[in-house]
Amino acid sequence: MKSKYPDDSLALHTDLYQINMAESYWADGIHNRKSVFELYFRKLPFGNGFAIFAGLERMLEYLRDFRFSESDLEYLQNDLGYSEDFIEYLRDLRFTGDVYSMVEGELVFGNEPIVRIEAPLVEAQLVETALLNIVNYQTLIATKASRIKQIVKDDVVMEFGTRRAQEMDAAIWGTRAAIIGGLESTSNVRAGKLFNLPVAGTHAHSLVQAYKNDYEAFHAYARRHKDCVFLVDTYNTLKSGVPTAIKVAKELGDKINFIGIRLDSGDIAFLSKAARKMLDDAGFPNAKIVVSNDLDEYTILNLKAQNAMVDMWGIGTKLITGYDQPALGAVYKIVSIEKENGQMEDTIKISANAEKVSTPGMKKLYRIIDRENGKAEGDYITMFDEDPQLEERIKMFHPVHTFISKFVTNFEAKNLHTKVVENGQVIYESPSVQEMREYATENLDLLWDEYKRSLNPEEYPVDLSQKCWDNKMRNIQEVKDMVEQIDLG
Amino acid sequence: MKSKYPDDSLALHTDLYQINMAESYWADGIHNRKSVFELYFRKLPFGNGFAIFAGLERMLEYLRDFRFSESDLEYLQNDLGYSEDFIEYLRDLRFTGDVYSMVEGELVFGNEPIVRIEAPLVEAQLVETALLNIVNYQTLIATKASRIKQIVKDDVVMEFGTRRAQEMDAAIWGTRAAIIGGLESTSNVRAGKLFNLPVAGTHAHSLVQAYKNDYEAFHAYARRHKDCVFLVDTYNTLKSGVPTAIKVAKELGDKINFIGIRLDSGDIAFLSKAARKMLDDAGFPNAKIVVSNDLDEYTILNLKAQNAMVDMWGIGTKLITGYDQPALGAVYKIVSIEKENGQMEDTIKISANAEKVSTPGMKKLYRIIDRENGKAEGDYITMFDEDPQLEERIKMFHPVHTFISKFVTNFEAKNLHTKVVENGQVIYESPSVQEMREYATENLDLLWDEYKRSLNPEEYPVDLSQKCWDNKMRNIQEVKDMVEQIDLG
Repeated sequence: MKSKYPDDSLALHTDLYQINMAESYWADGIHNRKSVFELYFRKLPFGNGFAIFAGLERMLEYLRDFRFSESDLEYLQNDLGYSEDFIEYLRDLRFTGDVYSMVEGELVFGNEPIVRIEAPLVEAQLVETALLNIVNYQTLIATKASRIKQIVKDDVVMEFGTRRAQEMDAAIWGTRAAIIGGLESTSNVRAGKLFNLPVAGTHAHSLVQAYKNDYEAFHAYARRHKDCVFLVDTYNTLKSGVPTAIKVAKELGDKINFIGIRLDSGDIAFLSKAARKMLDDAGFPNAKIVVSNDLDEYTILNLKAQNAMVDMWGIGTKLITGYDQPALGAVYKIVSIEKENGQMEDTIKISANAEKVSTPGMKKLYRIIDRENGKAEGDYITMFDEDPQLEERIKMFHPVHTFISKFVTNFEAKNLHTKVVENGQVIYESPSVQEMREYATENLDLLWDEYKRSLNPEEYPVDLSQKCWDNKMRNIQEVKDMVEQIDLG
Repeated sequence: MKSKYPDDSLALHTDLYQINMAESYWADGIHNRKSVFELYFRKLPFGNGFAIFAGLERMLEYLRDFRFSESDLEYLQNDLGYSEDFIEYLRDLRFTGDVYSMVEGELVFGNEPIVRIEAPLVEAQLVETALLNIVNYQTLIATKASRIKQIVKDDVVMEFGTRRAQEMDAAIWGTRAAIIGGLESTSNVRAGKLFNLPVAGTHAHSLVQAYKNDYEAFHAYARRHKDCVFLVDTYNTLKSGVPTAIKVAKELGDKINFIGIRLDSGDIAFLSKAARKMLDDAGFPNAKIVVSNDLDEYTILNLKAQNAMVDMWGIGTKLITGYDQPALGAVYKIVSIEKENGQMEDTIKISANAEKVSTPGMKKLYRIIDRENGKAEGDYITMFDEDPQLEERIKMFHPVHTFISKFVTNFEAKNLHTKVVENGQVIYESPSVQEMREYATENLDLLWDEYKRSLNPEEYPVDLSQKCWDNKMRNIQEVKDMVEQIDLG
């Protein structure tokens, strides 16, 4: 159990093979060779046209605190059998590298480096698993939230998923990501405290059961809480719940702020329209209807098509788990490594799955924005010594179907990487979650509507510079030549 | 950030409405009324015929440590505006109730109480969200693991999903659940340490890239690690990876324990057969082939149908997220509450969704096992004052299609609930995870094969006793009568 180890650290929150490789690097004395790793995903989740990056603040906390605790070292030595000299080496190991990253709330697309780690080989290797664990989930949920927000537009959306989240960290980091992606509030009180998020919620069915009927329960709730949303589906929504809510609201008048009612079961389209009419007829045209019950962007789209009268949406399971695609597939690949002579050398991974071939070399990432209309033309990956900001005109071409190309002029090239860690010191201070949320919302204005459709969006261009593409092809050829020349005789 | 609050507790890991309801109960002086809540799910996940319960140890730790910390109380008062007298009440609040639960590794089915909480109303209410958060995820993953294990049979299965898990808690509690469900080991070192699990792993593509080619990399790995599984798909699986692995194994002979090779991309069916032949021809018939790459029970079934030559399976994303159904829908419902006069009274929740109607009353849960063949006839839910162990013959009937019925004789009625908390004190000591795993495996022998099919299994009976069914119908009628009599005039 966790409580058995008060010094439990996250340094062991990694795959065993990372520690095995670290040991090999260290034993061979190549552990301090400078290396460059990039973190990226290949495919956008949910068939969406964009993703929203989240996870940086947690990554930075992890890197800052990275160290093996006493119980970690004891476990590695006594239980897993690592040698004492390697354990002694690990004892003083800290993360000393540089990190460049997108900021949270940034739009991100497939096959572009979200994070670049420049660090001694052993350090960059050991942090891989945890960084992926963090970025994959938080980016997934920020993206799902943004999809939902695109559909509901100006309606309020609340995150209600804690009970269905995949354990506790997911509940709190997921709801933070959901707010970065555009949601208004969360039901999770701890997340509210830790991340300074707006929290929301009123009462559950058990309150009604504890007081035996709707009338007593709503009165009991109203005695202590000025803002009232009454849950109306414990016994019978239209015969008891809604009329009782109206009766209690009339009885209490100005003593409460009757915000409205909540529906959590039954046919939302039918019930919301019937409830709306009852509220309007009773003189409560401003009372809100809050709904929840396994909702996601697809059900919301359908409910809206049926003119469901809903003002506020509570989204649980389908958001907090990214239900229809519960994992983002980000990977972390070495793209450059120091040679024995101190020079950096590009490196590539070839695969029988063409989309798994990595793009070698240390690179930069730019968003190319048309100065006339303010819209993004696409993202542009260059080698580290290129600077599109100095170019009058750049050629953007599809990295697979290379004949698809265009020349772009009169553009701004926005560098999407910020230096966030220098020599192991975190030098970036995260803005508030609300600021991240605003940044994400503003960013969406960069995209043409075609990229923001929830179904079958256009593919946003993520292109390699000519130099970067040539370098990749050269590296592929070099590996093919090397394989050809292998003599296993 | 979490580190801002060194006294961060899990008491706030709940939905805001729980605290609102707690305040109402407390203000009205009904907070200490005895209440009974049951935790259960309605529908088995993944279309499976059974689930494996996991999560008890974490639940017990949570209940034992339940208390609001100073920073929790400050947040509730200063940020959320709860009154000082309520805050003072919360300061000393502990969980003082009794808890009855299934043990981890138990077979569990829909609509049967996994956990029963008997506690003062306010306490039972406040712990709802966290208990559901814990049980929903861990039970989901134990079940998914068991499904996979049913397909692979005696092959070894390793949990490799940390990088794709939904944040860090999911990685460690998920892999623990996966081992309860039948897996052999995990790649997550921290989980290995915390829960005393077998850990597994060798090296990644980056090792090969760091050493420039397969040959140097495999030798480097073998210099420090006696047990060698070489990853063979960094550049070219059949031209470089496999033949190089064989060459290095031959060169090093007894100096290493050449366990085998690992494939992580490409067509596993084709590559595994080709690699098997190369290994056999080279005199390594015992070398194992380990595969990974987005596997689950469906891909494994297909690979086996194509005679893929695989000895060990590494399962990542699809297991640790429960990919095809990433949430179990367990709920937590009040079934009985103390009246003003001190008597307990049953309570029910009615819903427009028929399957959401709860079963009122304090109940017990038995597994009815045929003494002749040792197989389970079904699960049997009784009122608390019934004891099927004293009956010669019981009638089991379907709780919806009541004409489906059978009489059972010569049975053992196994009580599935263990008292784990008494007056707030944890009185149950969890066995080791390995023991839970063995218990889960043994339990599967109780089930006829028809319930264990991964596709379209038979429905295992979960029946109510006649008394329990009658009580439910009576409660439903009472609510209907009450709704009829509502006079909102």
